[in-house]
Amino acid sequence: MIISMKRHATREEIDGVIQRITEFGYKIHAIEGEERVVIGAIGVGDTSNCLESLTALDCVEKAVPISAPYKFVSREFKKTDSVVKVAPDIEIGYDQFVVMAGPCSVESEKQIMESAELARRGGARVLRGGAFKPRTSPYDFQGLAEEGLKLLAKARAETGLAIVTEVMSDAEVPLVAEYADIMQVGARNMQNFALLKALGKCGRPVLLKRGLSSTIKELLMSAEYIVAHGNKDVMLCERGIRTFETATRNTCDIVSIALLREMTHLPVVLDPSHATGKRSLVPPLARAAVAIGADALILEIHPNPAKAMSDGAQSLDPQQWMAMMEDLQPYIALWKQARLASQPVAV
Amino acid sequence: MIISMKRHATREEIDGVIQRITEFGYKIHAIEGEERVVIGAIGVGDTSNCLESLTALDCVEKAVPISAPYKFVSREFKKTDSVVKVAPDIEIGYDQFVVMAGPCSVESEKQIMESAELARRGGARVLRGGAFKPRTSPYDFQGLAEEGLKLLAKARAETGLAIVTEVMSDAEVPLVAEYADIMQVGARNMQNFALLKALGKCGRPVLLKRGLSSTIKELLMSAEYIVAHGNKDVMLCERGIRTFETATRNTCDIVSIALLREMTHLPVVLDPSHATGKRSLVPPLARAAVAIGADALILEIHPNPAKAMSDGAQSLDPQQWMAMMEDLQPYIALWKQARLASQPVAV
Amino acid sequence: MIISMKRHATREEIDGVIQRITEFGYKIHAIEGEERVVIGAIGVGDTSNCLESLTALDCVEKAVPISAPYKFVSREFKKTDSVVKVAPDIEIGYDQFVVMAGPCSVESEKQIMESAELARRGGARVLRGGAFKPRTSPYDFQGLAEEGLKLLAKARAETGLAIVTEVMSDAEVPLVAEYADIMQVGARNMQNFALLKALGKCGRPVLLKRGLSSTIKELLMSAEYIVAHGNKDVMLCERGIRTFETATRNTCDIVSIALLREMTHLPVVLDPSHATGKRSLVPPLARAAVAIGADALILEIHPNPAKAMSDGAQSLDPQQWMAMMEDLQPYIALWKQARLASQPVAV
Amino acid sequence: MIISMKRHATREEIDGVIQRITEFGYKIHAIEGEERVVIGAIGVGDTSNCLESLTALDCVEKAVPISAPYKFVSREFKKTDSVVKVAPDIEIGYDQFVVMAGPCSVESEKQIMESAELARRGGARVLRGGAFKPRTSPYDFQGLAEEGLKLLAKARAETGLAIVTEVMSDAEVPLVAEYADIMQVGARNMQNFALLKALGKCGRPVLLKRGLSSTIKELLMSAEYIVAHGNKDVMLCERGIRTFETATRNTCDIVSIALLREMTHLPVVLDPSHATGKRSLVPPLARAAVAIGADALILEIHPNPAKAMSDGAQSLDPQQWMAMMEDLQPYIALWKQARLASQPVAV
Repeated sequence: MIISMKRHATREEIDGVIQRITEFGYKIHAIEGEERVVIGAIGVGDTSNCLESLTALDCVEKAVPISAPYKFVSREFKKTDSVVKVAPDIEIGYDQFVVMAGPCSVESEKQIMESAELARRGGARVLRGGAFKPRTSPYDFQGLAEEGLKLLAKARAETGLAIVTEVMSDAEVPLVAEYADIMQVGARNMQNFALLKALGKCGRPVLLKRGLSSTIKELLMSAEYIVAHGNKDVMLCERGIRTFETATRNTCDIVSIALLREMTHLPVVLDPSHATGKRSLVPPLARAAVAIGADALILEIHPNPAKAMSDGAQSLDPQQWMAMMEDLQPYIALWKQARLASQPVAV
Repeated sequence: MIISMKRHATREEIDGVIQRITEFGYKIHAIEGEERVVIGAIGVGDTSNCLESLTALDCVEKAVPISAPYKFVSREFKKTDSVVKVAPDIEIGYDQFVVMAGPCSVESEKQIMESAELARRGGARVLRGGAFKPRTSPYDFQGLAEEGLKLLAKARAETGLAIVTEVMSDAEVPLVAEYADIMQVGARNMQNFALLKALGKCGRPVLLKRGLSSTIKELLMSAEYIVAHGNKDVMLCERGIRTFETATRNTCDIVSIALLREMTHLPVVLDPSHATGKRSLVPPLARAAVAIGADALILEIHPNPAKAMSDGAQSLDPQQWMAMMEDLQPYIALWKQARLASQPVAV
Repeated sequence: MIISMKRHATREEIDGVIQRITEFGYKIHAIEGEERVVIGAIGVGDTSNCLESLTALDCVEKAVPISAPYKFVSREFKKTDSVVKVAPDIEIGYDQFVVMAGPCSVESEKQIMESAELARRGGARVLRGGAFKPRTSPYDFQGLAEEGLKLLAKARAETGLAIVTEVMSDAEVPLVAEYADIMQVGARNMQNFALLKALGKCGRPVLLKRGLSSTIKELLMSAEYIVAHGNKDVMLCERGIRTFETATRNTCDIVSIALLREMTHLPVVLDPSHATGKRSLVPPLARAAVAIGADALILEIHPNPAKAMSDGAQSLDPQQWMAMMEDLQPYIALWKQARLASQPVAV
Repeated sequence: MIISMKRHATREEIDGVIQRITEFGYKIHAIEGEERVVIGAIGVGDTSNCLESLTALDCVEKAVPISAPYKFVSREFKKTDSVVKVAPDIEIGYDQFVVMAGPCSVESEKQIMESAELARRGGARVLRGGAFKPRTSPYDFQGLAEEGLKLLAKARAETGLAIVTEVMSDAEVPLVAEYADIMQVGARNMQNFALLKALGKCGRPVLLKRGLSSTIKELLMSAEYIVAHGNKDVMLCERGIRTFETATRNTCDIVSIALLREMTHLPVVLDPSHATGKRSLVPPLARAAVAIGADALILEIHPNPAKAMSDGAQSLDPQQWMAMMEDLQPYIALWKQARLASQPVAV
């Protein structure tokens, strides 16, 4: 930490600050300038509380941390990319570019079976579909719950696709973990800390979506919660953030993909459906995601989007889906070439 | 709903849209202009799904709702202000301007007893204090849990203050409801729908904080969840939103207070501590909150902010707290006068 | 400045950084920790360029300034409040709470004369009205230009009100300065540096509106431009910022008023019309602005808002305007009492 | 326009609204529902003023436009892509993927000549470099002004590159137009309407950068200003918007590229340097920009970034620049293939 004292802080105040920092377990290096005193605190201690305690003092101008507040998920902690095995033959994070596709919600057996077959045919390896749906209105369709999970399992049995589905409460973690290959945390729950702790012990890989207004650092902190509670198989997902722009459903912070690959060893996924909210924008954004170096895509397709019970406007119809996957192939080939070149050691 | 067709929509497409809207239970009025067709859909139906279904069609330019998607919490549904009784002699929403004060976290018996006594002395009627703490980092202090709830109950017994404290998971609702007079939903959980549903049946008033990037409409929708699940005693709390400005911890959307009072009959509370993050800004903002017509304040005080385990920088020390409450009195007197004048019927 | 080196910076890199900082004229204090080296640079130099130059180096983790980048406008530079004399008997910044009111645009002689008379009757001291209008669309009404300025001057002659009006280009500064008592810089031009420089030499007080997405620090930097180019009579105006919330036209950052009063000695004004965009919200926000300590208000009124050529939805009609001014009186009385108590020395 | 009346609007109020709309030149279609009346207004009229006038009425719930407020720049107005010729052999908008590169500021003859040579060697066709610099602080380097323009012209003479440089004031448009091949409007001036009008008559192509907090629609409206004042050669530039995220200098709204290509026929450019603020992120974002279908890139390079007078942290050094351009080639090849396939008619 660096603590900058106010311009006219007294010697007594400065000594008081130094003493407090020492109590928190840091070593001190003070710089006495002409205008003000700056104190460097170096070592390992309870940074958050120490910073808060110092900021509360009137004699302190500002107090800032130097090191990142997360550990296990940082690139400094582990230099090589992490690879998450989500099924015996599906690994995300090295040289397989994985596409997860499916409807927003599981609506019926017919719909999910058709969707799964469509996903498989286009080249997806994982089927997405919501059984528990976070809906802004209490009057909207809330999902089929366990019945939906059973239908997903049936689709997996028939197509060989792995399953990713959302879990909304720590109380439902065990139930969802019985059926899902990947546990999805929705954007609205990214800082549901009770849920994150429960996922630390769920025994399944987790796909953690970035909150609508969460910073990249907060996303990493939420991933750290899961890892710190026992589960290292975490994938991060950019799905657009909330800004002043309303021409798209959200604003896709695509640069976060490249930045996260510098900051963390965890795989990074992009969701072009929620990031845009408009199906015509999904294929160009998917291309850009491959080009910038995402590890996987998760997106919405539907056998008949106009009849979808949710997110119809952003779901690809069968023809668009097949065309997009074909269009992506040369980009995926370039992606794979870059991965094989840059990554000498698989982990 | 108003559905505006694309400029060159065919007769067949227009008829298809009309049929679909009719299936959702609406009556149709089409306007055939020179440039395009606009369709009005009037009546009661499943608006969200209908809108999503229409937006998914390529021939539709845009589809917008006219009525608000919430019902029970709207001012149209209930014209008179709702009054929430939080203790035998404490009512929020009519002519009592209620102040809730206390530390961010319950840290120890000594600390919470001193805080409660301090709160009471300044004129607060409700004691705030967190037993379950949502913290961005898994390595930060997470609260004393049930031990903290017991200490709050003890403080209530000694001072006569009511208790407001946060609940973070649907699984913990019964436990917190045993101790709390008001169940607080934190900003990060405003759209934790599992929690909102559980609070619908908790039998206690709820203080619902606005999410960091939640719109006013979403705040009302979350309140609607609680009411629709059985609990009409909901209070809304503005605590600052996340914007590009970093000079304050959050940006206080103070106008939301006045706007909410037009849109809903529920009481509206302001939290000047989280809205600013800096103690010197708390008293001026508290004055503004009274002037604009908030029903209550919730804020952080601490017997010794520099030693607080969280939020020290925004907690008032004893002297600032007493001075602020004295300074507020003439504003509260004007507030009360306005309330008594404008509100002929107590509910 | 504080420069934190990357963890594995070499001795050679560290020495290179130290040498560069020294070349920029700073004294150096290096802290050699176990994990990394932190360098403190103290003294006076070309901070912006030095910071940019250092951040460009791969061996530097981050480089942050300690002092504020503005000088003349800071509270540190001048402790006492500045008072801006806008007319022989009108001073903003001490114990006169000044209200500026009028239509968005000058539309016709009849309209501006009626507006001026209405403003005067309600107790305004300054008449606002746009002759040059910044409009998002090239097809919207662009203002009456010099003809509008002449009408404003005529209204001043008849009512005794001072005049505030917008200037949109450095080329038009001399013309507008011939007529206006206060030169207004609109939000979209807050960082039109050519305009700011020209205003430094215009010989009139300036009302500088905060940009839609400008930080408080940037607002102060723009004020610094005007002062540094020769004009110390600058007033700052909060008029709402752009956020994700669309229920109001902008989001009023009311706390900026209190914060600016800590950071600068310049007077601070609030515009409740643009901050809300909805006339029913103007009177409650005006009350809050007085309570939080603004020096003045600028707002829109119109003899017949439904016929206004711009901003009709946020203009008060005559009855609302008179009622609001009456309602504000007890708040202004409290404001004045506080000013007289806190400010022993008029400047 | 669609005008939705308040629920209890009287017959008299409804008739008043209808009359007013008719006066503005529209045809009326009223829908009388059970809950409320909705009025459709169809035809051509002064939409902005009509909407404002209606919104000002208490009996109106909301009034929304249907058609876009811009005309000449819309894809509806002109279906085929526009191609802007910026030099005899350089056309932006069809099958040439153009890269514009150079330093942030022109600093000296040596620096700009080295930069130009470097740009040319990497394959850029246009040299960027600022002679007039918009700087947040009045104490920062403000550019070499005309001297800088002369150095740019000299670099053009020696390398054959075209020149793009910023103009900051309508008064300086003639001077800059003497030297520049492309006139750049910076983000802070996107709504400097006096400047936009002057550029309508400057006789040079314009590169219009999106404002920090400008919507896509506002960007198109500003382009409409230039076109409506006589200059159809406008290129739009996404350079990142301001959001709550501070990990990057701005948040790149990359989807705006794909969306703008749907909404307008004008070429769209991306600036990965300002969009990220960090040089390591520039090459991955440049790849994504090509993949999503941008027409050109504008970015910062510097012979020695650590000595740059501005923007050093985001400028590529010579080695990074050459590596990036090589890395982009297969993506540009795919881009070109798609352009030739999709665009049967060159314009």
